[in-house]
Amino acid sequence: MAKDSKPGRRSNFDVDYVIHYKIPTTDAGEAEAAFIELVKAVADVGFATEVRNGGKSSLLVFVKIASDKLLTTQVYKYRIQDWLYGVRASAPNQDLTKYFEDEPVSEAERLRLAYLLITKPKNEGGAGITPKVGHWKYVASIFPLHDHDFNRQWIKQWSTKYYLDNDDITEIRDRFGERVAFYFAFLQSYFAFLLFPAAFGLGAWLLLGQFSWFYALVNCLWSVIFFEHWKMKEVDLAVQWGVRGVSKIQLPRPQFHFEREAEDPVTGEIVKVYSPMKRLARQLLTVPFALACFVVLGGLIVSCFAIEIFITEVYNGPFKQYLTFLPTILLTVFMPTLQTLLTKLAERLTEIENYETVDGHQASLVEKIFVLNFITSYSPIFLTAFIYVPFGKILVPYLNVFQVTAQKFTTEGKPLPTKSWEINPDRLTKQVIYFTVTAQIVNFVTEVIVPYAKRKLFKAVEEVQAEMSAEKQSELHVRDVPEEHEFLKRVRDEAELDVYDVTVDYREMVIQFGYLSLFSVVWPLTACSFLINNWVEARSDAMKIAISSQRPIPWRADSIGPWLNSLGFLSWLGSVTSAAIVFLFNKSKHGPDGSPWDISGWALLLSILVAEHVYLVVQLLVRGAIRKMDSPGLQKERAERFTMRKQLLEQMLDQDVTDKSHGPGMSGGEKITRATLEEEARQISIKGNGSPDDLFWQRQRGASETIQIGRSLISEQAAANQTKAKKK
Amino acid sequence: MAKDSKPGRRSNFDVDYVIHYKIPTTDAGEAEAAFIELVKAVADVGFATEVRNGGKSSLLVFVKIASDKLLTTQVYKYRIQDWLYGVRASAPNQDLTKYFEDEPVSEAERLRLAYLLITKPKNEGGAGITPKVGHWKYVASIFPLHDHDFNRQWIKQWSTKYYLDNDDITEIRDRFGERVAFYFAFLQSYFAFLLFPAAFGLGAWLLLGQFSWFYALVNCLWSVIFFEHWKMKEVDLAVQWGVRGVSKIQLPRPQFHFEREAEDPVTGEIVKVYSPMKRLARQLLTVPFALACFVVLGGLIVSCFAIEIFITEVYNGPFKQYLTFLPTILLTVFMPTLQTLLTKLAERLTEIENYETVDGHQASLVEKIFVLNFITSYSPIFLTAFIYVPFGKILVPYLNVFQVTAQKFTTEGKPLPTKSWEINPDRLTKQVIYFTVTAQIVNFVTEVIVPYAKRKLFKAVEEVQAEMSAEKQSELHVRDVPEEHEFLKRVRDEAELDVYDVTVDYREMVIQFGYLSLFSVVWPLTACSFLINNWVEARSDAMKIAISSQRPIPWRADSIGPWLNSLGFLSWLGSVTSAAIVFLFNKSKHGPDGSPWDISGWALLLSILVAEHVYLVVQLLVRGAIRKMDSPGLQKERAERFTMRKQLLEQMLDQDVTDKSHGPGMSGGEKITRATLEEEARQISIKGNGSPDDLFWQRQRGASETIQIGRSLISEQAAANQTKAKKK
Repeated sequence: MAKDSKPGRRSNFDVDYVIHYKIPTTDAGEAEAAFIELVKAVADVGFATEVRNGGKSSLLVFVKIASDKLLTTQVYKYRIQDWLYGVRASAPNQDLTKYFEDEPVSEAERLRLAYLLITKPKNEGGAGITPKVGHWKYVASIFPLHDHDFNRQWIKQWSTKYYLDNDDITEIRDRFGERVAFYFAFLQSYFAFLLFPAAFGLGAWLLLGQFSWFYALVNCLWSVIFFEHWKMKEVDLAVQWGVRGVSKIQLPRPQFHFEREAEDPVTGEIVKVYSPMKRLARQLLTVPFALACFVVLGGLIVSCFAIEIFITEVYNGPFKQYLTFLPTILLTVFMPTLQTLLTKLAERLTEIENYETVDGHQASLVEKIFVLNFITSYSPIFLTAFIYVPFGKILVPYLNVFQVTAQKFTTEGKPLPTKSWEINPDRLTKQVIYFTVTAQIVNFVTEVIVPYAKRKLFKAVEEVQAEMSAEKQSELHVRDVPEEHEFLKRVRDEAELDVYDVTVDYREMVIQFGYLSLFSVVWPLTACSFLINNWVEARSDAMKIAISSQRPIPWRADSIGPWLNSLGFLSWLGSVTSAAIVFLFNKSKHGPDGSPWDISGWALLLSILVAEHVYLVVQLLVRGAIRKMDSPGLQKERAERFTMRKQLLEQMLDQDVTDKSHGPGMSGGEKITRATLEEEARQISIKGNGSPDDLFWQRQRGASETIQIGRSLISEQAAANQTKAKKK
Repeated sequence: MAKDSKPGRRSNFDVDYVIHYKIPTTDAGEAEAAFIELVKAVADVGFATEVRNGGKSSLLVFVKIASDKLLTTQVYKYRIQDWLYGVRASAPNQDLTKYFEDEPVSEAERLRLAYLLITKPKNEGGAGITPKVGHWKYVASIFPLHDHDFNRQWIKQWSTKYYLDNDDITEIRDRFGERVAFYFAFLQSYFAFLLFPAAFGLGAWLLLGQFSWFYALVNCLWSVIFFEHWKMKEVDLAVQWGVRGVSKIQLPRPQFHFEREAEDPVTGEIVKVYSPMKRLARQLLTVPFALACFVVLGGLIVSCFAIEIFITEVYNGPFKQYLTFLPTILLTVFMPTLQTLLTKLAERLTEIENYETVDGHQASLVEKIFVLNFITSYSPIFLTAFIYVPFGKILVPYLNVFQVTAQKFTTEGKPLPTKSWEINPDRLTKQVIYFTVTAQIVNFVTEVIVPYAKRKLFKAVEEVQAEMSAEKQSELHVRDVPEEHEFLKRVRDEAELDVYDVTVDYREMVIQFGYLSLFSVVWPLTACSFLINNWVEARSDAMKIAISSQRPIPWRADSIGPWLNSLGFLSWLGSVTSAAIVFLFNKSKHGPDGSPWDISGWALLLSILVAEHVYLVVQLLVRGAIRKMDSPGLQKERAERFTMRKQLLEQMLDQDVTDKSHGPGMSGGEKITRATLEEEARQISIKGNGSPDDLFWQRQRGASETIQIGRSLISEQAAANQTKAKKK
């Protein structure tokens, strides 16, 4: 429909999806049977199919929705569903030609519906193909094709632009769906909001220095405003994009195992049931999981920390220059390994929690990943701020274990040389700078440059290999029709790419926000660093989508989902840690080396308590204020609702019920009364004597008689009053 | 309609509303003109009218909806409005006779619509009568008549019943509307929930004693569960009663003054605007108001407290037995006066905040009243617990001012006798017992017995007076038709009654909940006292409505409104105060006389901090758990939505768009493909050569060709693999 396919070298040949089918090497018969079933299933639901050689023992099945009619039917059906669930304010117009002119089908909508048609279970009218799962284990992936013209133009445009506007986001939405668009909208909004703390932070750095309570206050206030603003903006965008409430329309998860089928007591439908108590029991496993993360990762961090302190600040013996790198090496080796293991564990745990819906699964996984990242990202700084500095004097002597251990390995009997130890107050600052600058750069490199380089390298290696076994290469390509060769090569490349996972990008931004909220009082330039980083981040994420990933399936979304809670949590925690850090370190004038607990523990706790409650009150106020503000999205919604109500009301009230309901005027009023009374009189004459009720209402026939009698009562009472007055 | 009017002595003669019209004594002409206008306005919108002498220089205008048709039209119109606003799931059936059989009009609905018809502005189709305001200043009140048969039966039934069930609440709803019913539902739910802390409190009192941290923990947990449960119950009831979301349909406030009229940018309607900035400025006045309350009431309480301590615990001179009563006298004299003044001020402030809607006004007023009551109710106990006991030793010497003052008035030069002072640790317990037992009884007496006695007394005085001026009495009654005499006498009595204000009753319950949540750790029997009190309370409130108030106008509501926030606040504050009280007083073994700040201020703060966060976490968990629970209301809603969706979907999809959308089977799939391809081939022959897109999709004609080619590709690759395997 609205798909602008430019024919030529870069055309996608109108392909909607490519199904990448891995031929199992074990059994050719099974491979054939599964393939036939696949094509049949897809063709059955109305796709046109083409098959090509996929290279590396695989096939590429190209599918497109065969007829416009099927597409329009699907669009119409899903739009009606949206309307029924309250996502759309108005029901689709029944004049279809006009309707699709008014609200054309975007590329994202077409692709989403096509994907649903491929993956939905058979009993719901889909082909029921679930990549990699069970029956369809040979289907490696189902992916749409990149629009390379668009991608090139997109990257070019963004890399020459200072600031992304709403049009840029809307374009992403039309191409990659609301889920991806929401990430970029969040990034854009966060970037715009960062301008203030960057400027203010620079000022604070120059004028106030570190650990300023004023900076902490402003920073907290900013994070509240940002958070509350985003919550509103999110709703606003969802309304503007017509997706508000889509999270209510849940996608069933194909991996869901049900225990039994039961009849829904309400709807009478057969539903698949999994005991919620069982799920709860499994959800409770999250607690030991979090503890395990804490112990394992925390233990690693603490050990490396202790070793580092011992080596850099206590130890003064031989090989010091080499030993300094020991903790870093330990961290670099073990941390990613442990993290990967724990992430796998988190996925496994979420798997056995067995959610019915994709969203439920996703939310639970995100929670666990957040816990994991929270520990790895923030605990080193927590350790320095709240253990090392206040308690260092007490704890460092225990580091002697290392000395004792080291002693054993030295042959000579004389003690290892150590230097007398003092707390290094700059440590915290250095650490924060590391996490907010160095780590961001490292992250960028590992996220963008390394995969790119890796792919290039693999590609080169492969090509060399292929050239060496030239006969196989030719065998593969021999069947490619010349005009398709370029295209098929591209598709084969895309089939090898990773699936784009927006969660990873969200995680990065949320963790970054955490540094700003929790620790930027240590180093006010944090926001400046993030501002620069995020400018690059938006572009590199765009590149990641365009170049290093398969084109994402354009899912819808009405919010940034479970990350919202994480943001809120970090914003709140920021009020607590900022207050504590300011309290502990702002006294640097008289040295941060004393253990503050016995001096003013209550003052520390009081400042935390006050900061937290100020935060909560401010949040309430900001929330109240922001809720009162109008926004384009809400205006649009109001307008739509109003129009719908007006139309419906007119339709309903056009019917015979409303005529002469009110406003018949004085005489009309009397007429009604009189008519009723006459009717009543007739009733009385039928029944015999009137009931007391009837008699009561017949004393004054109509309003004019009431007025007459009322007047006489008034004048009587006035007269009585006068008499009384005279008497007095 | 569903109104069961029992004719006879106690009948209401089918009267819907009585308009009590006070004849102004100044100008008979004006009185007449205003009266005529009144009757005309009411008759114009379709009411039948009757006028009778109201006694005491007033008229009683009886009105009833004249025709059934008008009533049904109104009901239909408002039900459609409800449907459009999402309050009702399904649109009213258009077969009206059947519709009204299925969903009959309750008495409350009829009365509500009649009241709206009387009071709505003229341009919205009402008579525009606003009692006491502006143009209608002679209209003293508009009230429906009590159904005395029902009331007698109601009171009788309730006073012989231990436990109120849902039917009792539903009956109230049908008679007095959802707003009153919600209060009784809340009371019932609270009463049921009190059973647990009453039993547990008794046990704790016997086994654990006062200031037990375990009791505090259980009590906090209970208050969280109660609060979260009520939030769900509220929604559930609203759904069951079909009023969920009615708070969205706002009643405009007649007293609202607009600054200018503007066109709504969205709907194009003319709306009345009042600058939100101006309102905000005026809302900010709440802050000085709260401060003023705090200073004035707090000052009074502190002074009386100080005087009391001085007299009872320090002073030992002459007149001690009389002076002991001084603080009580001061409090009894000044407190109600100040409270009345401040309530007036609160009303005035809310008035000038100038809300558009009744709900907005009400919510703002409730907030202020809560602040007022919070200070008067809890500050004496706060004072004892957190100032008197911990700091008494430091502060009491300052009470010498009283001694010096007193000294001046004694002629003799010798110093006044004082006794050496010690902190009285029982003071707190005594105070809590006073507030939770004595004050509740006093409250019951002033709320129920005093007004009743007062009314009886006044009545008696009046009758004596009337007998003395017998000729005036006869003048009044001479016009009463004998069969109406009893009825009119009753109506004249009802016209003199107070308007029932449910806010007062809510306030009482919320403040009571506060004692339980904040201070019951001091005296665990608190809940027992409240349990008994609330049994009586429900009955006495019912009596208040039935006997001492005009019948309330049956407004709708979908929640207990702004009180919900107050409840949540008190529940949260309870976690803090309980922890602090337990910490401060649980050490009573080694005497509570030391100032704890320099000993373990941080421990106190830490216990508060921990308690609060435990509370917040538990709240999150309980909320999560309760949200997952199903309830009859939510089931009903789901069922309704499901039916509606099903119906609408069937209607929509019956149309021509859906036929042969999918499931055409393998051959059907091919048919579609082939048909499309043929169409495409035709297109190509028209256009000349096919585009690359067309060529791509024409290589394999239909799914069976795709399968064929796929099979050959698979066998080829299998062969290649075998060759490779052999080579190795």
